[in-house]
Amino acid sequence: MLKPLGNRVILEMIEEESKTASGIVLPNAAKEKTYFGKVIAVGQGQRLDDGTLLSPEVKVGDTVVYEKFAGNPVTYDGADYLVIAADDLVAVVE
Amino acid sequence: MLKPLGNRVILEMIEEESKTASGIVLPNAAKEKTYFGKVIAVGQGQRLDDGTLLSPEVKVGDTVVYEKFAGNPVTYDGADYLVIAADDLVAVVE
Amino acid sequence: MLKPLGNRVILEMIEEESKTASGIVLPNAAKEKTYFGKVIAVGQGQRLDDGTLLSPEVKVGDTVVYEKFAGNPVTYDGADYLVIAADDLVAVVE
Amino acid sequence: MLKPLGNRVILEMIEEESKTASGIVLPNAAKEKTYFGKVIAVGQGQRLDDGTLLSPEVKVGDTVVYEKFAGNPVTYDGADYLVIAADDLVAVVE
Amino acid sequence: MLKPLGNRVILEMIEEESKTASGIVLPNAAKEKTYFGKVIAVGQGQRLDDGTLLSPEVKVGDTVVYEKFAGNPVTYDGADYLVIAADDLVAVVE
Amino acid sequence: MLKPLGNRVILEMIEEESKTASGIVLPNAAKEKTYFGKVIAVGQGQRLDDGTLLSPEVKVGDTVVYEKFAGNPVTYDGADYLVIAADDLVAVVE
Amino acid sequence: MLKPLGNRVILEMIEEESKTASGIVLPNAAKEKTYFGKVIAVGQGQRLDDGTLLSPEVKVGDTVVYEKFAGNPVTYDGADYLVIAADDLVAVVE
Repeated sequence: MLKPLGNRVILEMIEEESKTASGIVLPNAAKEKTYFGKVIAVGQGQRLDDGTLLSPEVKVGDTVVYEKFAGNPVTYDGADYLVIAADDLVAVVE
Repeated sequence: MLKPLGNRVILEMIEEESKTASGIVLPNAAKEKTYFGKVIAVGQGQRLDDGTLLSPEVKVGDTVVYEKFAGNPVTYDGADYLVIAADDLVAVVE
Repeated sequence: MLKPLGNRVILEMIEEESKTASGIVLPNAAKEKTYFGKVIAVGQGQRLDDGTLLSPEVKVGDTVVYEKFAGNPVTYDGADYLVIAADDLVAVVE
Repeated sequence: MLKPLGNRVILEMIEEESKTASGIVLPNAAKEKTYFGKVIAVGQGQRLDDGTLLSPEVKVGDTVVYEKFAGNPVTYDGADYLVIAADDLVAVVE
Repeated sequence: MLKPLGNRVILEMIEEESKTASGIVLPNAAKEKTYFGKVIAVGQGQRLDDGTLLSPEVKVGDTVVYEKFAGNPVTYDGADYLVIAADDLVAVVE
Repeated sequence: MLKPLGNRVILEMIEEESKTASGIVLPNAAKEKTYFGKVIAVGQGQRLDDGTLLSPEVKVGDTVVYEKFAGNPVTYDGADYLVIAADDLVAVVE
Repeated sequence: MLKPLGNRVILEMIEEESKTASGIVLPNAAKEKTYFGKVIAVGQGQRLDDGTLLSPEVKVGDTVVYEKFAGNPVTYDGADYLVIAADDLVAVVE
């Protein structure tokens, strides 16, 4: 298993279709893609100036939106992940 | 529902026509567009050096002006949003 | 009405002719333009490291000189404004 | 022997094949490579603002994933190593 | 009158000829120009982290050398000035 | 003699051949060069925020590895040196 | 006389020939030039975060090595000087 270092988390990337509120799937060719992922592991968090640690806002199992081009793609044990700084996660699905 | 992370907010983007004070709509071809949005959700805010949190100045329901090219466009449940750093909001309509 | 956020102010831009001290208007083709504006609204100011707020040096009604290319042009209610960081104001007319 | 300075570690780079969970080796031509290394030596760590030292999260013997293009390749005593900032290690294998 | 904002000063730019110590004026075509100015007004100074203000080292009437390309040229009341950050003044004539 | 200023050290650059553990010299045409130097002099060190000085980790006589393109080459008294920031030394030979 | 501002010093630039330890002057066409100067004046020094001043390490009369391309060339009273940040001095001759 991979454990993220520092203020990073590990994501499983999710291929998301564009759906309307009523659930109808729309072709979405021209639109910019939204980047969703599922949090698989969470690092120790951010080190503050006084040395204390601040955990990321997200937890294992959360579905999150992340910034395009952010993070390092990693292949481990035949599966693909994204190791990404917690600051590059922009929103969480509730 | 999407919840913004960190010092970010989520906006519904507003298509605004240029109106004079008297309400007459003017064609506005040459002018630079103004970017308006409606605040849909507010993140936990900015983390100060001593670890305390500072909420964004804006609240849900506010109409705001945001910087061009700022933020991440996100499509969720068939609707389009902009997840944007609170620091990239320049003004609020009162 | 628009209210600026953070350490920003809102300006009405002023078209200024070049005048000599004796009031004679000189053609000023080759010279670099000076950017004048009138302060319409003032944001809450700059957040210091300890979380306290520091108001901008300028107040509503001041005529100021601002840096070229700074700020966001905004059209609201048929009028044009510039929302600009207080740090991009370089001088005030007294 | 080489000892890393500051908040750096020294890695032996590992050539990793892509394996599925069941251990079958897949040709992986198109995919981006994952960069694995084994920690050979650990520096004194990060100097905090108050002058105290904070050891890296990893220890000698750990297998880590590191950022592409990070670190300085070093040849010493006929063997190749990577001297890399601890902040450029993104994950550790557990 | 113009008053500089923040840690800025206002200069009258001085056209300086190259003179030897004995006062002979030398043609100085190939040399890089030195930028002299006279301090006309001084801003409130630099804001330290704890919120206190630190006045610029120069005072009204000083002749100073400033960095090439620094500052904003301003025309006010028919005269030309340079509004410049105090940190871009490199030396003062004593 | 030259004394480095600030958090710098002075190195004698070393031309190093690639040797295997058994001492056989291998031609090393394609490989990236490793940059070795011998520490000749050490500056006063790094100034922390509170004004205290922190000596470099290395001492006179140490053999170190330094980052490519870092430092200033200096010729003094007919000999060549590299004056380099202590932070650009990546490892020390023990 | 010129007095440097802030953490700057003023140098007289020195044209230095390459000499061996035995004093023989070698033609030095291909080598990178070393930049020597003599300290003519020293500014008040570096302002620390708490507002106190820290004098430069060098004093008037010192011969120093400075970084290529650093500083502002200044002509004053027919003589040429370099006004340079104290941090861009890399070594002092002892």
